[in-house]
Parts: sequence; structure tokens; C-alpha cells
Amino acid sequence: MNLLLKNANIPQGDRQVKADILVRDGKITGVTSDADGFAADRVIDVDGKLVVPGCIDPHTHFMDPGFTHRETFTTGSRSAAAGGLTCHVDMPCCSKPSVRSKGELHQKLNPLKDQAYIDFAFWGGMTGEDVREGKLDNVWGQVEEGVTAFKVYMTPSVPTFPKVTDAEMLEIFYKIAETGLPVGIHAENFDICSFYTEKLKNMGRTDAPAWAEARMALAEKTAIQLIIAFSEETGARVHIVHMSTKEGAELVRDAKRRGVKITAEACPHYLTLNAEEHMTRFGTLAKIAPPLRGTEDNEVHWQALADGTIDFVGTDHAPYEIATEKVGEGLDIWNSFPGIPGVETMVPVMVSEGLNKGRLSLSRFVEVTSRNAAIHFGLYPKKGSMELGSDADFTVIDLEREYVVDQEKVQSMAKYTPFHGMKLKGKPVMTIVRGEVVYDEDNGGIVGCSGYGQFVTRQSNAQLNRVEGELVY
Amino acid sequence: MNLLLKNANIPQGDRQVKADILVRDGKITGVTSDADGFAADRVIDVDGKLVVPGCIDPHTHFMDPGFTHRETFTTGSRSAAAGGLTCHVDMPCCSKPSVRSKGELHQKLNPLKDQAYIDFAFWGGMTGEDVREGKLDNVWGQVEEGVTAFKVYMTPSVPTFPKVTDAEMLEIFYKIAETGLPVGIHAENFDICSFYTEKLKNMGRTDAPAWAEARMALAEKTAIQLIIAFSEETGARVHIVHMSTKEGAELVRDAKRRGVKITAEACPHYLTLNAEEHMTRFGTLAKIAPPLRGTEDNEVHWQALADGTIDFVGTDHAPYEIATEKVGEGLDIWNSFPGIPGVETMVPVMVSEGLNKGRLSLSRFVEVTSRNAAIHFGLYPKKGSMELGSDADFTVIDLEREYVVDQEKVQSMAKYTPFHGMKLKGKPVMTIVRGEVVYDEDNGGIVGCSGYGQFVTRQSNAQLNRVEGELVY
Amino acid sequence: MNLLLKNANIPQGDRQVKADILVRDGKITGVTSDADGFAADRVIDVDGKLVVPGCIDPHTHFMDPGFTHRETFTTGSRSAAAGGLTCHVDMPCCSKPSVRSKGELHQKLNPLKDQAYIDFAFWGGMTGEDVREGKLDNVWGQVEEGVTAFKVYMTPSVPTFPKVTDAEMLEIFYKIAETGLPVGIHAENFDICSFYTEKLKNMGRTDAPAWAEARMALAEKTAIQLIIAFSEETGARVHIVHMSTKEGAELVRDAKRRGVKITAEACPHYLTLNAEEHMTRFGTLAKIAPPLRGTEDNEVHWQALADGTIDFVGTDHAPYEIATEKVGEGLDIWNSFPGIPGVETMVPVMVSEGLNKGRLSLSRFVEVTSRNAAIHFGLYPKKGSMELGSDADFTVIDLEREYVVDQEKVQSMAKYTPFHGMKLKGKPVMTIVRGEVVYDEDNGGIVGCSGYGQFVTRQSNAQLNRVEGELVY
Amino acid sequence: MNLLLKNANIPQGDRQVKADILVRDGKITGVTSDADGFAADRVIDVDGKLVVPGCIDPHTHFMDPGFTHRETFTTGSRSAAAGGLTCHVDMPCCSKPSVRSKGELHQKLNPLKDQAYIDFAFWGGMTGEDVREGKLDNVWGQVEEGVTAFKVYMTPSVPTFPKVTDAEMLEIFYKIAETGLPVGIHAENFDICSFYTEKLKNMGRTDAPAWAEARMALAEKTAIQLIIAFSEETGARVHIVHMSTKEGAELVRDAKRRGVKITAEACPHYLTLNAEEHMTRFGTLAKIAPPLRGTEDNEVHWQALADGTIDFVGTDHAPYEIATEKVGEGLDIWNSFPGIPGVETMVPVMVSEGLNKGRLSLSRFVEVTSRNAAIHFGLYPKKGSMELGSDADFTVIDLEREYVVDQEKVQSMAKYTPFHGMKLKGKPVMTIVRGEVVYDEDNGGIVGCSGYGQFVTRQSNAQLNRVEGELVY
Ligand SMILES: [Zn+2]
Ligand SMILES: [Zn+2]
Ligand SMILES: [Zn+2]
Ligand SMILES: [Zn+2]
Ligand SMILES: [Zn+2]
Ligand SMILES: [Zn+2]
Ligand SMILES: [Zn+2]
Ligand SMILES: [Zn+2]
Repeated sequence: MNLLLKNANIPQGDRQVKADILVRDGKITGVTSDADGFAADRVIDVDGKLVVPGCIDPHTHFMDPGFTHRETFTTGSRSAAAGGLTCHVDMPCCSKPSVRSKGELHQKLNPLKDQAYIDFAFWGGMTGEDVREGKLDNVWGQVEEGVTAFKVYMTPSVPTFPKVTDAEMLEIFYKIAETGLPVGIHAENFDICSFYTEKLKNMGRTDAPAWAEARMALAEKTAIQLIIAFSEETGARVHIVHMSTKEGAELVRDAKRRGVKITAEACPHYLTLNAEEHMTRFGTLAKIAPPLRGTEDNEVHWQALADGTIDFVGTDHAPYEIATEKVGEGLDIWNSFPGIPGVETMVPVMVSEGLNKGRLSLSRFVEVTSRNAAIHFGLYPKKGSMELGSDADFTVIDLEREYVVDQEKVQSMAKYTPFHGMKLKGKPVMTIVRGEVVYDEDNGGIVGCSGYGQFVTRQSNAQLNRVEGELVY
Repeated sequence: MNLLLKNANIPQGDRQVKADILVRDGKITGVTSDADGFAADRVIDVDGKLVVPGCIDPHTHFMDPGFTHRETFTTGSRSAAAGGLTCHVDMPCCSKPSVRSKGELHQKLNPLKDQAYIDFAFWGGMTGEDVREGKLDNVWGQVEEGVTAFKVYMTPSVPTFPKVTDAEMLEIFYKIAETGLPVGIHAENFDICSFYTEKLKNMGRTDAPAWAEARMALAEKTAIQLIIAFSEETGARVHIVHMSTKEGAELVRDAKRRGVKITAEACPHYLTLNAEEHMTRFGTLAKIAPPLRGTEDNEVHWQALADGTIDFVGTDHAPYEIATEKVGEGLDIWNSFPGIPGVETMVPVMVSEGLNKGRLSLSRFVEVTSRNAAIHFGLYPKKGSMELGSDADFTVIDLEREYVVDQEKVQSMAKYTPFHGMKLKGKPVMTIVRGEVVYDEDNGGIVGCSGYGQFVTRQSNAQLNRVEGELVY
Repeated sequence: MNLLLKNANIPQGDRQVKADILVRDGKITGVTSDADGFAADRVIDVDGKLVVPGCIDPHTHFMDPGFTHRETFTTGSRSAAAGGLTCHVDMPCCSKPSVRSKGELHQKLNPLKDQAYIDFAFWGGMTGEDVREGKLDNVWGQVEEGVTAFKVYMTPSVPTFPKVTDAEMLEIFYKIAETGLPVGIHAENFDICSFYTEKLKNMGRTDAPAWAEARMALAEKTAIQLIIAFSEETGARVHIVHMSTKEGAELVRDAKRRGVKITAEACPHYLTLNAEEHMTRFGTLAKIAPPLRGTEDNEVHWQALADGTIDFVGTDHAPYEIATEKVGEGLDIWNSFPGIPGVETMVPVMVSEGLNKGRLSLSRFVEVTSRNAAIHFGLYPKKGSMELGSDADFTVIDLEREYVVDQEKVQSMAKYTPFHGMKLKGKPVMTIVRGEVVYDEDNGGIVGCSGYGQFVTRQSNAQLNRVEGELVY
Repeated sequence: MNLLLKNANIPQGDRQVKADILVRDGKITGVTSDADGFAADRVIDVDGKLVVPGCIDPHTHFMDPGFTHRETFTTGSRSAAAGGLTCHVDMPCCSKPSVRSKGELHQKLNPLKDQAYIDFAFWGGMTGEDVREGKLDNVWGQVEEGVTAFKVYMTPSVPTFPKVTDAEMLEIFYKIAETGLPVGIHAENFDICSFYTEKLKNMGRTDAPAWAEARMALAEKTAIQLIIAFSEETGARVHIVHMSTKEGAELVRDAKRRGVKITAEACPHYLTLNAEEHMTRFGTLAKIAPPLRGTEDNEVHWQALADGTIDFVGTDHAPYEIATEKVGEGLDIWNSFPGIPGVETMVPVMVSEGLNKGRLSLSRFVEVTSRNAAIHFGLYPKKGSMELGSDADFTVIDLEREYVVDQEKVQSMAKYTPFHGMKLKGKPVMTIVRGEVVYDEDNGGIVGCSGYGQFVTRQSNAQLNRVEGELVY
């Protein structure tokens, strides 16, 4: 079975070059401007659209199994496909059970296998409870099953995934350092967040931006500097998920210069939205943790993403049920759930606000939406590249298409987004996974099948600055 | 009433110059090599000994009122006089009540007034409890009464002086920043200290160095970097008391370069003793918090003290009752009390190991044992200098005297010290406070009177890099 | 006319991937593992050898016209082809006339056009004489004719290309900054070099290492720091050709961090040879300027080449006639000519000592031998890449072939090299320029034709950190 | 013979304290507030004026012997006395002979001995000519005679004191490093200065600011970075005389942090005047080298002087004959002589613009006008302090006196100054040298005697950061 993707504009460095892409059995077998004699079972003519390596979301909470009133793996995966994503890496916390051992990984994986439209990998996890119960060695079972990284929370998330104290985090770092895998941290100083939440609550504050004020930038800054110190102590590869502040970007930049093994993730919302304007407009629907920040943080993060300080983009897709968890009787800015969906808006926002506005060159766009996450999570060169032998995962982008984000029209069960109403230019219009079209904006929308998506395991311990290296233990 | 101190060698820069010092009514009124025609009520001939501005210990816990089985203000003050100190600044925590308000200050001060042999000032205090109970404004009453600084603990001390959480410390910094006074912090990450204490205990460790291992250098490093971040946020003048690690010295050096308002205190024991050797030798008698470190930390601290990174020396004099609190039935390295006496060994150790071994120039010796603490605590120019009008406080030093530290011969009630058995060269032999001899090694020892020592209040908000400035609110 | 290059191992990131390369009319038209149905006029089976983008030497002195007793463009180009190079950029100085104007460029180009076996571009030039004679605007004529960069000498070279004084260099930088092109500087402080040359001569030194001692590292260090200051003043893109010292690497690293527009070139001889050993062994035959340095410089330069401080490799190929200019009657270390051939040993040394010894990853090897020079000199994407539409320039490398460098067997007229006798592993065995085999180690050696090589002009003002940009004036 | 200086306000730290100063045989023998019983041969009541350690000008060109049409040692010394100076260090260049050897030092010293009103020391010198003629060892004879430092010019000064080339400067640094003495450099890149002078001349520029444009800031910046590199190479203590640019201050600050042995001198004119305004107003009378800069440079230098980056102040007093050398027939901005008098305005300007405007604290004022130069030039503690045993050199300052600088009323033969017309507040009103009043503003002006001033030799190799150390060879 082979496929010919004709008239693609593919990235070569920062240029787009017209090419045809040959695919056999789901793998890329050629890139050519000379495909005339090539006989293909199927030909797709993309008519000059930009075709990039399939975009990857390294940070999703698909809520399944366990919280399927919010999102199922099916709806999450469809939403991701519609957003131009070909692969995502799902977090270990927002499911029942959470993933903190080999057994729990299987319990999570089994019910999901038949639901995926696009490929997916898993984060493993480790919590304070695991430390207290002497279960640190559970990291090894997870490594065996192919988790790509480990997640740790410095602040409480869902009840099934307890936060760590400082010392528990240190213990976890020592252990994970042995595996060579990265550990991603939700980096907020818990004590600061909870103290000022109580303080503002007690002052009677109910406005939405109070949420951002309580979880002040200093909470992220001090968390990140602690993580850096712990990385230097333990040798662990640390990764700051959903970094939100300019202070964080400065700390990461300095730490990288000193040789600390640190990476960081930007989110579309921290790049383009701010607390004052968007929390005022969307209220609890824009409530996330860490909170939206200011416009200066936006600009510093675009710069940091462009210059290599921040390594790639993720969505922190965390959908909640509006009526019971976001907006409704008894729900206010303090007790509503923090989280927003994101997989359907990530590529659109990055294309429109990043690539099309010149904040990201074409090569950097490919790195931050696909290649770097693939390397970081050990999925490269299977994912994240358009090399011979790579999976034929493509995101096809119409750079000229203009439209307005409409939260009613999303595939996700969560019909809300703080990007609602934003005018964008540039849109992913076709999503191809291993040679199969999964989403076709102009011809039927979701055209893939539930269960087509495959579980992908970590292939190597590659780092962004040292790509080689097989996973051997 | 006037006094002529004849044949002194006084410091002029790094040189010693032969001079006579004129004193009237307890104040210095002249320094001359030409005193022949000067008629004095009393003449003391020091016969070429080094006479420096009266040494100050900015960090004592004299345990009175409340814990007088350990030390009384009388015994503490006598011990300090015998150690060549003319003034000390007593901590707010180790007394009943602890000092966290104007009223408590008076309650502490009253029973002490008639006990002092040398002058003394007070630290104020602020705890997590004060924050939780809305008593932050109590800093102002303490300022009015002349406290020199405020003390905060990141780890538990005595029950009457609760520790702070991160957020409580931040709140305290915001408040103290308004006063312009410095805030001194016992800087150890509580969570790390308690976690590893439990861990090592549970592993069955009972050796003394386990105490140092549990309270690892990382606990101090991460505490100090948090304090620095909070200082940058709040503008508070922060001061690291009893800094013990080389990592701390590096953080303070960098922060000073960036303009952070930070100072630090070295202790004789962190300069000259190490955990492996001295905790093994002295066991629980060498137990303190933070713990003794390594020989590399010693050397880094001498260098930091010489180059201005560390600002002055204090003892953290914290005497305990040996039989019930240090060594005895049921007391081990974990449950014995952390603390050692220090006022009687500070000047001897600094003279012998610092000045006489060339690690400190003469001018730097004067700065770190007297002048800088006086400026930092707002006592200068009354204290800490040999200027006209300054108090006639002198420490007379015999640079050649050799002796062995003997814990049995101390004035303190606490007959133990990890310096026991150390051979020293150079000794304070006379202590003069406001023109009165309080201690005379070779003629009677303690010759001063109980109650002669005066309570001294902060005179100004002077900083080491900006000495001017009256205390005005 | 099309070609199929079969069974190539091509670089994809740091991996080698088996692929066939399709070529039509001298351009790459496809890369595929699926070429079975592809009908080609010619098929070359490279049998699993590594095929990289054609290597480029950005720094040659082919001595023609004018000094053809040393090298002709024909012999230089043949030597380069035999060394695995597909393109070189020839310097403006070692010809009659030298190239400092549009007219001179034509005078140089005309006699060379029919001699080249591989493609070539030109450096333009600017000298102190041009400044003094008011001819700064001659840079524009050279830009129009497609020079890739400008060369400036801080020390005397050949009589027809006078050195600059400091101020003349500054004037030239101001002018070249207007063009956006880089200016490459031979960076040695002239006064230091000439003073210590005279001094050592007068001391009677005649040993070969005296040459290195006279032109001390400080001469390069101070030259580079001056260049950096001038770049910051003028905005000129500065490029340090043939950088030789570790001090230089440090200055370039720091300047890059501060945002200075600076690049640097390493040479195979500064990476692998040292003054003491190789000047002693080869005498005047190893005499070059700047001189060979020490083994520590070697290692620092390998590291700097790997980490991006140094941008690419060039040879400074400067052949001289042995009998009259290097070794013979009346020739000593002071008056013999400084220069060594290099085009035939560059790729072998970089493969053997860099790639095969793990000092350079595969992707970095491609960057420093091909891609980066192409970008820097504005030849990319025509040169320096294996992208669709790029020239079908390939260097075919047998990574396993072991051999000993033999100066007798070179294509160059200059039968000497300080690499003589070095055992290497890994060798370029076939050179393909625009789809034509020019050199085939195992089948006839030089098989290309004189005059096949084309003159290539600068395509854009691309910089390494900003690849886009067309050349528009 | 003894003296009592009554009712002085002396500096103690940053405070003024009322004191009487006792003097016997020209030395300070006491400082007291208790001098009632003290019998003195002479009493001077300064009625509460500020009395500081006698101010020192470390940088004068008194032009004698050899250029006495400009200034004689007599007139220069009288001018200095009137300006509140008690000591100056005269440069080796502007005399016949210049001082580059022991013999020349004697030739200069002999005719001056009977002319001085205040004390004086000498700079030694070394020139390119000395290097070329193999006379480097002449530094030793000068050291024996007590020179305080060595002077080197990177640009031409008077014909008898040739400039150095880069290599000659390097040779000199190697040699002077052996002596431990500092070497002061006139730091301007000669080639830049001369090239742009010619260029602007040829463009027909005759306006005064053209002088500043030609000797651009870059000339000083590149000179200083060269000097720093040479200091790091040779270990020489380097000193930047008359530093003029903000770029220079930045380089010195960074170099000090890295541990380079570098010091720098500010001048009153670079602190308060600027090229555009003052060269336009005063024309050739404000012509100096380096030239006046901008107001931003002024502010950066005040800050650098306050924070310790710049070590002390000097005048570069270089008076010329107005009619033949500054303003007159055939004299323009290019061929008039560069130099201004300064000894009579230094202390006034530093008091008015520095101390009284709060740019300098009192302690810093004393350091930069007296103490630091004394230490740097090895004259401390004889000079530069008010310590027991120090010379009784005092500058008595009326901090309230307001006046306008009037070039007609100066003691110097050079009746011009770019400070002419400036309103100042604060004035030295009495100058006391070794217990004798030399100048008394309100009682006769110059009241000292020609020949009273003594030649002072270097006492030690003290550095500002290491004050101890006797001069032993
Ligand atoms: Zn999170
Ligand atoms: Zn998340
Ligand atoms: Zn403590
Ligand atoms: Zn304490
Ligand atoms: Zn060269
Ligand atoms: Zn060259
Ligand atoms: Zn000068
Ligand atoms: Zn001068």
C-alpha cells in the first residue's frame, strides 16, 4: 500500500519547497520533485499547501478512564486530529487510576486502545504518596512499558495524584535521574499559592483576575529555582511544563548557559492571552494553573521560544464540564476547576500568531510544534521528522485561510476556550497519520477511525542537544 | 571622670600605631601620641597590646528569662566579657516570653536590666503565628523600642517562637521592608531537614555526623535562594544568620553583585570546625543547626569573610544543660538539643585563626568583629569605632599569648565547647566598656559589676554601603 | 539527463539512513528508499557509503593568475576535487591583480573560467591602500559581481594586497556594514608580530618554533578583541578567518552571547597539529600565519567547533614553491613563505579526527564542512544542502578506509603538507558536482573536465542565525 | 614646635565630628575633643570648617625645567596650594629632560627643590625609544630614587617623551611588572586618533567639537581593552590616567571583577564638562586629550567614582601659553596645544559638584581626593590620612562658601580654564602642609615659602586592596 502526497510545500530550512512525498506502509519513503513515474495506490494533491512533520502535543489530560463526563479518549483524540495533531503525550494524573506504576499504566492503556484517532504516548508519574510508601522503584516498571517522561506536581492536582513536598521531589529526582528520562514538573510554590488564595478569598475578592494575583509570578519563579537547584544536585533532566512567566524564562536561560539539564514548554495561552483582559472576559472559563499572566510575559515567551530558551509547545489540554465544574450554581473563581481544552487551537494559534506573524521562522515552527517534542520524549525519528523511514505523519496547513475561533464547533466535549472569538490566519486543514488521512477540513472533517491511533513508546533517551542514543537499561 | 589608656597599639588601616586614648565620661575624647600633659583620674597602661574597638557579638541566645537552667543573663554577660566582647545583640526566641511585640520586649528587658556586665541590644522577632493571627503590625512597636533587626526562623526553634512557611516569610518581608530594618533568617529548608532526619533515623543511623547529613548543604542553599527571591520581590534587607555552606557564600556573592540588599554572618565554628572530625569527637556537644560542614566550606568562608561577601562574625551562642539536654540517659544525636556556647571563644578564635594566621588583615578583623555589626545593627558610631564621641569600648588583645581552650574554665554555665582542646595564639585580656574595665585576665578576671551593662537601641537605619541616615519614622 | 545515486547512506540528523538520490539536470530532485521504478540515464551505486552535501572550502588561495609557479587554478581545483570538495571560495589577495574592485574581479575571473573542475566563488577585498586612495566604494562593484564576503589583512600578505591600520579597518567596516556582507579578517596584531619577529631574529633564534613564539597568542587575542569592538561600533558582520588560539575561541563565544555579529573559521591544522611537535618535524614546511599553537588550543577548538562557537572549517590553502620559497638556499624560518596546501586533506582530517573519533556528530560534521559555509557565504540552498532543488553536489565518504597521508601523491603542485605521514581512517572517495562525477578514487581518480566548474555568486545575505533573505540593493 | 588646630570638623566615616588636632614637628600626634590642657606653640581656630587629609593631585605637568614660559614649578606649586592641595605627583614628560632614568630624575629634581610650596612626588617614565634603545632596565634606577609609578603614552606627547607601539608597551609592562609599581597609561589608540584628525581636517572642519569627534570614544575603549589584555599577560599593575569615557568605566569595572590589577583616574573636567557645550564655548582653551565627552559619560563617571570602579581624581594639569600655544595667529583646533590647568579647581569642583551635591559621601570624598592616591602611589600613611604619625597635611574647607570660578584670579601662569564662570558652592580656604599654613584664603592667600615643599618618595608597594607591604628589592 503506497501513497503519493502531491504538490506539497515542504520546509527546507526556512524555505518552502514544492515536493511530492512518497509513502509506503505508513512510512515516508521519498521526497521528490520528480514523482511522475511513481505509481501510487492513492494520490492526494494538497495543491501547494504547507506540509510539515505531524504536529505533536506533549501535554494532554484526556481524562479517560475515570472522568469521562469531561472528555473521553475518543473525543480528545478527535479534537486533536481536527487541530492538526498526529500524536500526543497524555499525562498520568487525570484518570482513574492515575499512572504511577506498570500496572496502573496497563489499566489506563487498555480502555483507550480502541479509541484513538491519532497516535499517543504516555507520561509516567510519581507522587509524594509514592515516596512516603516506598514505591520509588515503580519508575522502573513504567520505563519498561515505554513512558516518555515522568510528571510531578508541586501543587495539588486531582486527588488521585498527590503533590510532593520539597524533599519528596528531591527523592524522586534522585530516582528518576537513574533512568535518564526527563521529569516534568508543575512548578508553583504550593505554600504561596494556597496562602494568597486564602488571603484574597478572605478579603472578599471574587473577580477572575484575583486567581492570577493569588498564584503570583513569584510562586513559579521560586519553584523553578528550586527545581534547578535539585537538578544540579541530582543530575536529573528537569522539564518545566506549561511555563508561564518571564521570570521563569530568565531562570531557564541562565540555567541552560550553566549547563543545567533543563528544558521548558510554552503554551499557546501563555503566549497570546493575559490575565487582566482574558480572565475578565472569560471568567472561570479562563481559569487555569498557573494562571494567565501579562502581555510582557507573552512577548518574553515568544522571544524565548524563538531563541531556544523554551524548547517546544504543549497545550495542557484539561477540559472540564462547564455546568458542574466551570460555570454554575455555587461555582466561583476559587472553587471552579482550573483547566481549558487546547488540542484544537494549538496549531492554529502557533501558525497564525507565530509563523505568519514572523515571530517564528519556518524551521523553528517545525521544531517547536513537532521535532523537539519528538526528540525530548524519545519518539524521534519515528515521529517529529520528514525523514526517510519516519512515520508518514503530516499536518497540512493552509497559510492563507482566515477564520474566527468558535468554541461551539469543536470536537472536544468541552465547548469553551479563551481563544473564542479570536481571528486567526492560517489553519491546519488535513491531518495524516502513518499515511492515512484522519482529518480533512474540506472533505468530511474527521475521516479517520477510532482505534487507528497507536500507543507509542519511548525509543531512546535522546536529548535535544544529543539526539543519538538508544534506550538501554 | 576621665581615663587615659596608655601605650595602646591601635589599628590605623592595617597598621598598628602606638597611641594613648583619652576617655571622659565613658566616651572617647582623644587619640594621641602626645598625652604627656594630660591629667587623668585613672591611667591604664596596656603596655603595647593591641587595642581594638570593643568587639560585638550580634547573635546570642542568653536564655533569660525562661530557660535559666541553661544560662542566665548574668552568666552569659560575664562569659561575653571574659571573651573580650563589649556588646551583644540578643535573639528574641530563647526566652519566655519570646520577643514579638513591644510588650514582650519589655517583659524580657525588665528582669535583665540589672544583670548585664556589658552593653546589649535586642533583636525583635516575627513568626508564622504572628502572620496567622494578623499581628504583623507588631513590628512597629518593636521598632519604637529600639530593636536592631528582626529574626525569622524557617525551621522550628523553641516552641514559643514558631517557624514560618514560605508565604508567611514573604508577608513578613513585605512588612519589615517598610521599617528599613534588616531581617535575619535562620535559613534552612524545613521540609528537607525534617524528611532526611526521619529517613536517617529510620535507617538506624545514630552516629553524630548523621545530623549533618540529614541537614544537608542543599537545605541551606535552597533556603538562601528563596530568601534572595523574596528580597528582590519585597525590597526587604535580608541577612543570613550563621551561614554555614560554601554554596551559601556563592549565592550571597552573586546577589550582592546584582544589587540585592543582602548581608551574611559567619560563625567561628563554621570557619574552623567540620562535621566529620568534630561531630565525631564531641558528639551531641557539637550538635548545632545548621550543622558543621566540611573543610572546604571553612576555607570558602574565610575567603568570603576577607573579600566582603560575608559581612561580620557572630557566635549563635546557645548554651544547653548538658545533663538533661545534651548528653545523658535517652539523649541521642536526634533528640538532644542543638546549640553550643560561643561568646567566650569568638574573639580568641578570630584573633588566632584569622588575624594571626593572615586570613584577615587588621582592618578587616576590626570590621568583622566590631565595626560592621555596629553599622548593620544601627549602633554605629556609638559602638564599633574608636572615633571621637564613640563609647570607650575596647578589647585589649595580647597577640602573643598561647593557650589551650578549656571548657571547664568558662564563665558560661555551659561547660562544653567544640573548641575544647584547641591551641590558640592571641587572646583578649582586658574588656573595657564605656571606660570601665569589666574584665581583666591578669588581675582578677571579671571585675565589672552586674547591672553596669546598658540596653542600647538602634540609632539609625545605616547599611554597610550607606552608613549615614538617622532613624526617622 | 538524470542520475540515480543508489545505496547511499545519507545523514538524517545524526543518523545515517539508506537512500537513493534522484538528480535531474544537475539538481537534486528526490531522496527516496523507493526508487525502483525510477528510470535514470545513469546509475551510480555507492554501496552503502556515506553521502554528504558536497563539502566546501571557504578559504583558498589558488595563486592564479600571477603566481602560477606555486599553483594554477587547474591544479588547485583538481586537488580540491581529489580532496572531496565540490566548491571553494577563493581569496582576493594571492593573484595578479588582487581583487579589490569590479574590474580586478573580472581580470581574475577570465583566465580561471576554463580551468575549474569544481565550482568556485570569490571573496572580494579591501585594503589600507584603498582607504587611503578613497576607493571604499569599490565594495559596491564587487557586491554587484557576486563576491561572497570581503577580506581584510591586519598583517602584510602579498605586496599587492596591503594591510590595514586600525583606523583603516574601522573605515572599511563602516563601509562593508552597508552591504550586509561579512568581512573576514586575518586577525593578528601586526606590531606585536613584527616586533617579536625582529627580537627573536636578533637573538639568533633560527629554530622553527621561534616563528610561533614571535607571533604569540596574544597577537591574535588582541586583534580579535579589537575586531569585536569595531563590529559593535559599526554593525559590520565580522568573521575571524583561520582562528588559531583558545583565547580567540573564548572571545568569540562571549561576543556571540552578547549578540555581536561574529563568526569564526577553524582550520584542520589548528585542530590537530601543534607548533612544538610539527614545526620541529616539518620546519619551514609547517610555517603558516598565524602559526601552529599548542595541544590545548587543539582541544578547545574541537570543543568550540562542536558547540557552535566556531562556525565552519576552511583550509587557508596557500601553496608555495618548495625550492624557491620554502626550503632551500638562504631560506630560513624567518624569510621563507608562510603557507601550506590544504584542500586535499581537509575532508580526510575532519572525517578521521572529527567524525570518526566522535568529536563531531554527523549533523555537526555536515554543518561545519558544508552547510554553514554555504549559508554564511550566501550560496545556500544552492550549495551546502541535500534539499530538493539544490545542486547535486556530493562528497562520498568511505568511513572505514585507512591510509597514510603522502605528500608525494597529491594533485596540488605543492608536494608538501604537515599532515604527511599521519594515519587516517575515513576518506572521501568520490566527488560529484552538479550530478557529474569529478573525482573517483577507485576508478581513475580525476575524471572531471577542466572548465566544468562554474563561478557561483552570492545569492542572499543569509546569516547562520537568520537563513532567509534575498540579496537586494 | 607644636600646633593645635582647633574646632575642626573632621571626617569620621561619613560624619563630621568636632575635634582639635594636635601636631608636633609636622606630624599628627593627636585628635581630641579634650584639648583644653594642651599647650601649643601655635593655635589655629578653624571655627567649625571641614578639615580633611591634605588633598593630593596625582597627575600634574608642571612644565619645569624646560617649558617655563607655560608654568614654573613655583607657579604651579602656588596654584596647587591655592587649590587646597598639599601634595602632587608630577609627570615625567613635560620637562627637559624628561624623566626616564635615574640621571634624568636628578636633572629634573635639582632645579625644582627650591621652588615648591607643597610636597611633591614624581612619576617615572618609559618610552618607545627606551625600548628600542635597550634601556628597559632604567626602570630600576628610577625605582631606587623613589618614583611612585611609571608613565607610558600610547599617543605622542611632547617630542622628548615618545609614544609606544603596542609591542613596546607590552615589553614595558613585562619589565615594570618586576618592580611591583603601577604603570599609568595615556590610553588612546594612536592610529584612530591620527586618522580621524586628518580626515576631519581634510573635510575642512574647524569647529572645536571636531577635536572630540576625531578622538572618538572608541579610541579610548580599544586602548583600554588592549591594556587589560596586556596586564593579564604580564601581571603588570595598570592604571588608566585621565579616563574619559563611559565605555572605559565599563571595561575597568568588568576587569576588576575578573581580578585584573587595574585602577583608574577620573578628572574634574570629565566629570562635569562636555564637548558640545564647553568646547563650543571655550574653543581651543578647552582642548585636551582625551577630549571632553558627553553628559552621559559625566554621569557614568560620577557613579563609577562613587562605587569604586574609578579609584581617585587627578587634574592632568597641563598649562600652555595662551598667546603662542592656545589662541592666536595661526592657531586652530588642530594645531593648538592640548592641555588645561587644573590644580586650582580640582578640590573646589569635587567639593561643590561631588560632596555638596551628594554624589560622593564624605568618606568617599576623602578617599578619592586624598587617601586612595596616597595608597596607590605608596605615600600612605605619610600622606593621605589623618592618622597618628601622618604628616600634618590638611585641606580646610568652607562648605558654604559660594563663588564663581574666575580664570583671571588664578595663581597659575595659565590664565584660562574651561570651568571659568561656573558657580560653585564649597571652597578650600586653608592649606596646611606638615603643620605649616601655606595658603590662607582669608588672610593673605599664599603665605608659605618657596622651597618649603619636599620631595617625597614611594614608601611601599601598597595597592588599594592590599595596603600593607614595604618597598623591598
Ligand atoms: Zn499543571
Ligand atoms: Zn497539565
Ligand atoms: Zn538559628
Ligand atoms: Zn541563633
Ligand atoms: Zn591569513
Ligand atoms: Zn588565507
Ligand atoms: Zn595624557
Ligand atoms: Zn597628563
